[in-house]
Amino acid sequence: MTETANPDNHIPFETFEVGQVQDFGAYEVTESEIVEFAQKYDPQYFHLDPEAAKKSLFGGLCASGWHTCAMTMSMLVANMDKHGRSLGSPGIDSLRWRRPVYPGDVLSVHMEVLETKPSKSRPEIGLVISKVIVRNQQHLDVMEFISKGIFPRA
Amino acid sequence: MTETANPDNHIPFETFEVGQVQDFGAYEVTESEIVEFAQKYDPQYFHLDPEAAKKSLFGGLCASGWHTCAMTMSMLVANMDKHGRSLGSPGIDSLRWRRPVYPGDVLSVHMEVLETKPSKSRPEIGLVISKVIVRNQQHLDVMEFISKGIFPRA
Repeated sequence: MTETANPDNHIPFETFEVGQVQDFGAYEVTESEIVEFAQKYDPQYFHLDPEAAKKSLFGGLCASGWHTCAMTMSMLVANMDKHGRSLGSPGIDSLRWRRPVYPGDVLSVHMEVLETKPSKSRPEIGLVISKVIVRNQQHLDVMEFISKGIFPRA
Repeated sequence: MTETANPDNHIPFETFEVGQVQDFGAYEVTESEIVEFAQKYDPQYFHLDPEAAKKSLFGGLCASGWHTCAMTMSMLVANMDKHGRSLGSPGIDSLRWRRPVYPGDVLSVHMEVLETKPSKSRPEIGLVISKVIVRNQQHLDVMEFISKGIFPRA
């Protein structure tokens, strides 16, 4: 999906280089937010009930994997607001939930540019493929995925 | 991530066969829910402001792609509550947002089993790889991904 408004706020494709890294975000995960998200979208007991969750393999209440995606998007948008945005994203590859996310965790994002591909069919845009790693306050990976961002050519 | 409680409610790995399909769900998307999700997790103008969104390439207010994932999970969990659950999922592959999701859309899920793989290292479980397609009320695909579910061997 792409969008074109606020063109001045977009990052030119040429800005990106393979190997570039960015670190940002400090998202504090709370029990009430884990439960609220789960009630709406992922009502499984290990996301809802702290007592029952102790008996699950997670060892305690933990966030829905989709909630971790949503919290990550919140950090990505805050970073875009600071540095400029993409034109959108067609999708995500190789999403992996590595470790549970618990109440009290503080999440942050590490991003690395893996590949930059000028579009052959549309000379005005290019695709930037990045690895997104989400870590907790112990610097342990909790989630990772490959993101594809569409950016305008300079 | 995996869990072990309620073992009776799990579907045995042997139940699945390549080519099996399931259709379920009828999730009514509202403007207020789109905006509420976006305010928390994806505050971009085309998810927040119906007027401004008209000028975006989406042509109007539409749901965050991660919101569509969350609404899909809600349908998947309701279906699991009816038929039995997996032991969890290590992740998702090839997530693609095909079309915008608008207020008033009614989403449903079409699932097809692509592959069943007994675990070599853990004889008590197997992996079921399925394609998940989310469609709107016009039967147009809005999102798809490949899900991996872990199931107990019978």
